[in-house]
Amino acid sequence: MQTATSVDLLTRYRHIRLQSEQICAPLATEDYVVQPITDVSPPKWHLGHTTWFFENFLLIPHFPGYQVFNSAYPYFFNSYYESQGPRIHRSNRGNMTRPSVEEVYQFRQYVDLHLLELIEQLQKRTDQAAQEALFTLEVGLQHEQQHQELLLTDIKYILGNNPLFPVYAAGESTTEAIPARPAEWIEMAAGLYAIGHQGEDFCWDNELSAHQVYLQDYAIQDRLITNGEYLEFIEAGGYEHYDHWLAEGWDWAKQLECKAPLYWFQQDGQWFNYTLQGFRPLNIEEPVCHVSYFEADAFARWKGLRLPTEQEWEAACRLTEPLIRGNFLEQKKGHPQSVGMAPATQFLGDVWEWTASAYLPYPHYPRFKGALGEYNGKFMINQMVLRGGSVATPQSHLRITYRNFFQTDKRWQFTGIRLAR
Amino acid sequence: MQTATSVDLLTRYRHIRLQSEQICAPLATEDYVVQPITDVSPPKWHLGHTTWFFENFLLIPHFPGYQVFNSAYPYFFNSYYESQGPRIHRSNRGNMTRPSVEEVYQFRQYVDLHLLELIEQLQKRTDQAAQEALFTLEVGLQHEQQHQELLLTDIKYILGNNPLFPVYAAGESTTEAIPARPAEWIEMAAGLYAIGHQGEDFCWDNELSAHQVYLQDYAIQDRLITNGEYLEFIEAGGYEHYDHWLAEGWDWAKQLECKAPLYWFQQDGQWFNYTLQGFRPLNIEEPVCHVSYFEADAFARWKGLRLPTEQEWEAACRLTEPLIRGNFLEQKKGHPQSVGMAPATQFLGDVWEWTASAYLPYPHYPRFKGALGEYNGKFMINQMVLRGGSVATPQSHLRITYRNFFQTDKRWQFTGIRLAR
Amino acid sequence: MQTATSVDLLTRYRHIRLQSEQICAPLATEDYVVQPITDVSPPKWHLGHTTWFFENFLLIPHFPGYQVFNSAYPYFFNSYYESQGPRIHRSNRGNMTRPSVEEVYQFRQYVDLHLLELIEQLQKRTDQAAQEALFTLEVGLQHEQQHQELLLTDIKYILGNNPLFPVYAAGESTTEAIPARPAEWIEMAAGLYAIGHQGEDFCWDNELSAHQVYLQDYAIQDRLITNGEYLEFIEAGGYEHYDHWLAEGWDWAKQLECKAPLYWFQQDGQWFNYTLQGFRPLNIEEPVCHVSYFEADAFARWKGLRLPTEQEWEAACRLTEPLIRGNFLEQKKGHPQSVGMAPATQFLGDVWEWTASAYLPYPHYPRFKGALGEYNGKFMINQMVLRGGSVATPQSHLRITYRNFFQTDKRWQFTGIRLAR
Amino acid sequence: MQTATSVDLLTRYRHIRLQSEQICAPLATEDYVVQPITDVSPPKWHLGHTTWFFENFLLIPHFPGYQVFNSAYPYFFNSYYESQGPRIHRSNRGNMTRPSVEEVYQFRQYVDLHLLELIEQLQKRTDQAAQEALFTLEVGLQHEQQHQELLLTDIKYILGNNPLFPVYAAGESTTEAIPARPAEWIEMAAGLYAIGHQGEDFCWDNELSAHQVYLQDYAIQDRLITNGEYLEFIEAGGYEHYDHWLAEGWDWAKQLECKAPLYWFQQDGQWFNYTLQGFRPLNIEEPVCHVSYFEADAFARWKGLRLPTEQEWEAACRLTEPLIRGNFLEQKKGHPQSVGMAPATQFLGDVWEWTASAYLPYPHYPRFKGALGEYNGKFMINQMVLRGGSVATPQSHLRITYRNFFQTDKRWQFTGIRLAR
Repeated sequence: MQTATSVDLLTRYRHIRLQSEQICAPLATEDYVVQPITDVSPPKWHLGHTTWFFENFLLIPHFPGYQVFNSAYPYFFNSYYESQGPRIHRSNRGNMTRPSVEEVYQFRQYVDLHLLELIEQLQKRTDQAAQEALFTLEVGLQHEQQHQELLLTDIKYILGNNPLFPVYAAGESTTEAIPARPAEWIEMAAGLYAIGHQGEDFCWDNELSAHQVYLQDYAIQDRLITNGEYLEFIEAGGYEHYDHWLAEGWDWAKQLECKAPLYWFQQDGQWFNYTLQGFRPLNIEEPVCHVSYFEADAFARWKGLRLPTEQEWEAACRLTEPLIRGNFLEQKKGHPQSVGMAPATQFLGDVWEWTASAYLPYPHYPRFKGALGEYNGKFMINQMVLRGGSVATPQSHLRITYRNFFQTDKRWQFTGIRLAR
Repeated sequence: MQTATSVDLLTRYRHIRLQSEQICAPLATEDYVVQPITDVSPPKWHLGHTTWFFENFLLIPHFPGYQVFNSAYPYFFNSYYESQGPRIHRSNRGNMTRPSVEEVYQFRQYVDLHLLELIEQLQKRTDQAAQEALFTLEVGLQHEQQHQELLLTDIKYILGNNPLFPVYAAGESTTEAIPARPAEWIEMAAGLYAIGHQGEDFCWDNELSAHQVYLQDYAIQDRLITNGEYLEFIEAGGYEHYDHWLAEGWDWAKQLECKAPLYWFQQDGQWFNYTLQGFRPLNIEEPVCHVSYFEADAFARWKGLRLPTEQEWEAACRLTEPLIRGNFLEQKKGHPQSVGMAPATQFLGDVWEWTASAYLPYPHYPRFKGALGEYNGKFMINQMVLRGGSVATPQSHLRITYRNFFQTDKRWQFTGIRLAR
Repeated sequence: MQTATSVDLLTRYRHIRLQSEQICAPLATEDYVVQPITDVSPPKWHLGHTTWFFENFLLIPHFPGYQVFNSAYPYFFNSYYESQGPRIHRSNRGNMTRPSVEEVYQFRQYVDLHLLELIEQLQKRTDQAAQEALFTLEVGLQHEQQHQELLLTDIKYILGNNPLFPVYAAGESTTEAIPARPAEWIEMAAGLYAIGHQGEDFCWDNELSAHQVYLQDYAIQDRLITNGEYLEFIEAGGYEHYDHWLAEGWDWAKQLECKAPLYWFQQDGQWFNYTLQGFRPLNIEEPVCHVSYFEADAFARWKGLRLPTEQEWEAACRLTEPLIRGNFLEQKKGHPQSVGMAPATQFLGDVWEWTASAYLPYPHYPRFKGALGEYNGKFMINQMVLRGGSVATPQSHLRITYRNFFQTDKRWQFTGIRLAR
Repeated sequence: MQTATSVDLLTRYRHIRLQSEQICAPLATEDYVVQPITDVSPPKWHLGHTTWFFENFLLIPHFPGYQVFNSAYPYFFNSYYESQGPRIHRSNRGNMTRPSVEEVYQFRQYVDLHLLELIEQLQKRTDQAAQEALFTLEVGLQHEQQHQELLLTDIKYILGNNPLFPVYAAGESTTEAIPARPAEWIEMAAGLYAIGHQGEDFCWDNELSAHQVYLQDYAIQDRLITNGEYLEFIEAGGYEHYDHWLAEGWDWAKQLECKAPLYWFQQDGQWFNYTLQGFRPLNIEEPVCHVSYFEADAFARWKGLRLPTEQEWEAACRLTEPLIRGNFLEQKKGHPQSVGMAPATQFLGDVWEWTASAYLPYPHYPRFKGALGEYNGKFMINQMVLRGGSVATPQSHLRITYRNFFQTDKRWQFTGIRLAR
């Protein structure tokens, strides 16, 4: 793993930090505060938490004479680091009206001021401690980018949970239904494939170590499943027949009276969905999103097909480069876009793709040392891997080897479906 | 019941409406939004709900040509009126960031503008419909005053639940420990006593009908129990001995690991409490407050005494007039005050006093007609009566016959103890 | 309170103990073990618990040299006496397969053997300790009679919860629909009435002290509400209209999807109910039973009437003696019977009658001393009083002043309705 | 997959059916009835369910003129087959006192009588339907063997949950602490390994299809972890340090206040455990059992090692045949035994071994057709694979390729630990 050493590090720091604030720019003060479900954190919490990360792991250990902004803040902004002391219970985040939004922004300014100075200091140093600090800085930036995605999806949940269905941003997304080309099969031959991150640039520990796997013959589709295709599943009674579903998924769907993806609403026989551009008629050409693993899996079984494993996904993705990129945060679409007639496969961007792989360590998994060791490894159970990033993912944050993970019932992220056989 | 007909009705309307907003004046925007427990509603919800009451029950039926401010608002601001249509689930109030605080204030302005005009119209009319509308107006004003008390106690909970323990208002409360005079017994002779509201001025339906009850000999104390006296109970192991407690109270205290009143904190052997003036050392001379019925009852049993019934309380209160008034909202103390050497008994004001009476209808209880019939009667089960008002109650709202009621585990109101035998 | 001192005490002890076992005679071994809801205890637990009561409160303190049957049993058979040490959690009773049914009967035999000897000893003594022991014996016998009623209702729940709907006993109940005479009003004049137990014979502490109350004019019906009358409420949409219900009752009915009394089933448009004589068509002439307080109260409100207070009930009951008795455990009907054309009012027997009174202490309530002080007083909160006994109550156990009590959602007892206005 | 066709099929059927009843022979009637946790089913339910399987899938479709024993039984004894109609909720099994134990045994006799006749008929036929029926028969036998293991572990839970800690059977287990030899490492070279069932004899669908996997270099221990080794983890504060645990495991341990494996008890500083032979001092030489995945994983991490994947386990197991067998149901040990100085590795028998593999389908997984398709596939989510069988597994039921699976918090099975690196 190589730490960021370019002369543009200051610029990059400023850019990433600014991007978080820009995501929040359309919000009213009230929108920053609430937590309608435990999974969702208040936007001001994200802004404070990412800042605490820099203060806690960089300024306090590495900036001589640094005075913490407010000694009470770690209790608010530590997320789950047992090593970093007590903290408010996760489900209590949305009850904290203080620190105020303004105070959180002041906290950001204060930390940024010192961080920029610290970066300059570190860049002049060549010692081991400085190298480690620069690596932690890189982790902090990647961490902030992760929270940018969460910011956007949590904002969507906060607004979409409100009966007024407020528009987040007009966006550049079109409501025009651009027909998606038919799906084709990418045929893959059996054999040994290299999996995991190689090279010197940054990656998370869970992408390591690079290793070989033996894959059987398989085929994978060259585009995502669309709303229209998913609608066929619904109209065929997909949510009413147990035999498409995992037992736990069937119980989940029955208990929640789940009949469609999150943010889908049926009114007078017409389907609508809530998007960051507001409430609007369902566009059947767009990739389906906001489905749980249970739904993705049931859809695939109904089709007589299956989800790809993460290794199958990674091998096919690598094979078909460079025609794999779709829409990221930077394209400001705010919603996954129809593939149209484009040859691009949208392996990367638009929606995270559920895979049939449990989130478990790779062979010789090298967990990060120290407090950062709590970052990935301790979550490696009872979650499934998602691949590819989404319209809410910063493009510079994503790699082919990137492993995202969520529990099988989660669907407030931009999660979609690609089929294999 | 007489409706408000004085020439000062416009003034009174303006005053009461303004008072609600003044209670919220010290808040940050964020403080208006959250709901840390289901009992507590967001301040902006209170401001919207009381306004909805006027729009819904007065402007819509009585103001010709009235256009509702926003047709989506009833769904947000109807509290529990089944007759008035669907509404967000109570526990979801704190997840609604919209309408914004500013929009709620605009809603208030819009409704006030029309209401003031309606009042002028109604005062010129003599027909039955106008009289009924004026009665409903009176109910709306009394209703808003009730929510003023809830606003203050909900704000206290929101701020007191925050580890920063923000000060709500410096207040005029003193932290000086003014010694409370010893408690004396008011001896009451057995006999028939008149209970319930008489006369033409406003009262709630639950205070009717006035009727006679036969009371045995009893005695009741002439002041409230103090923090110091309650502290003796704690120090004597009051929370550790089952025999002081009702079985359900014992289970409640064990499950919540309850060891002191709400807002009491022990640090390094010293007791502190959170008040609207902030976090401060416990003042042992002040009346104890924020105790549940279970705690009040256990304290009384530990003392070898008991709580008075609501009839005993009312008879004694009436007997000792006029020396019964303590501190109300208007005195802006923000916290119950030591009785000091004053002869006043604080029957009214300072803290609501738990009585040993279940909240049940009086004989010949005349439930309000129509939608307002949902106001009191449907809650007459599994709650206990409290009497006397508190530092959060508007003085003009309170009467000797006033019956407040809460479940036995609630303690976020200013609830205290007076003993009987 | 006078203790039982007659020469027939041995006979009475034998009789009551035997009666418990006779109630269980129709059971299969399996039926003794389970606890389908927390309220219901396994029959073998009742048999063991009543026996533990005698061993614990009589043999251990009063029988010199007594050896406990099994030192592990108190942990199983103590119900809720905090003073008597730890015990299995109530909800865990139905998971205990040991002690076996046979062992529990051996426990009974062993204790009976010693108890009969102890009674003979005590009857020869005149000291204070002996008198106190004889009083405790009386409490033990009354206690066992209470558990006889619970045994029968718990057995009914265990069998009625089984899809096979086993017959408990053919019984002497008729399925013939004997028409119930029309209900008449008993008019009662306002005035002072004596309430509570007087005299020297046994009563529970909660029936004391006798005292006067002032009652307003009222009227009370001279028979119970029938299944047929309750069916009209159902058919009029009683369970679908919020305005008949207390708010808490409405929530209860919605959450449980409650549409009829417990044990009522609708099949192909016909109503049936499960009785101890098995599954059979609903007899519309019988008194309605197995309704919660919420249902009784909603029915009364739908009728434009109300439930009587316990004082109103007691005054009217006393006035109309001796024509008040219906069917008790001894009549072995197993189910409440149609009043037919009889003048008897069934104030006593057939079904417990929900009153509009909360279960609270009478003035000068003299709680039993010592461990027995946990018997009644600690439950005096959030329950409503029932009066009159049922087909499951031993006749010798019941008095006009007897106060039974349950939470407002309970309906597995034989609970019914009498109306007042 | 080959169906059972040997002339010994009748004998085998009789033997397996008898074995289930022999497992229950030591029980009192009461022990057959209860369900202390949802995971555990009442023994009489197991006896009825396995019988229902034969009646439902064999007699009804294949035995001309068959009369069902009792048409109400499917409602009781269908476990989770959505295709086979409604059934009592799983958590309600322990509330069903009927059918009685005796009736369940009669049900078994009745079904056995017809089944034996059906087997004879089928063995004379050569048509496809007969072949399919014989395959279903084989599934029924394997299914009954699975329930034999559950019977034993559920009985253990029922008895071990009782404060009397009844002895199930004296057994042939010794309480003598036979020293276990030191663990050695089996070194395995990287390469392609064959995984999954091959050949014509019976296997479950989840063991198919056989396929190759590429494994990295690894090593696996040649014996199980002992109680003594696990005790070191406890004494080193293993349950008190978050860093050994998966986040979900840490929450699990905190919430349940989990401080040792299931059935371990500490009294006066000494460790004891409940076994089928009763309550006894902990034998530190025996393999540790009744640990959850969370505990197995935390133990491994504390050791600086890890659990093997199921592929690593299978490859090593196959390599070291035939020295892999320990104790099965047939050895009647009732508890895992110390490996002593034996060269055998106990890969098979003694305890199920948690692997680091999620329970997911193999490539080209061929789900059973029809109703039996609900057998395995629908559970392939959020569970981990266990390998090797235990002292409660019939030896003839187990294969090297056998895949068992449980959620990560379960520990009432005989589940233990083998380490890899």
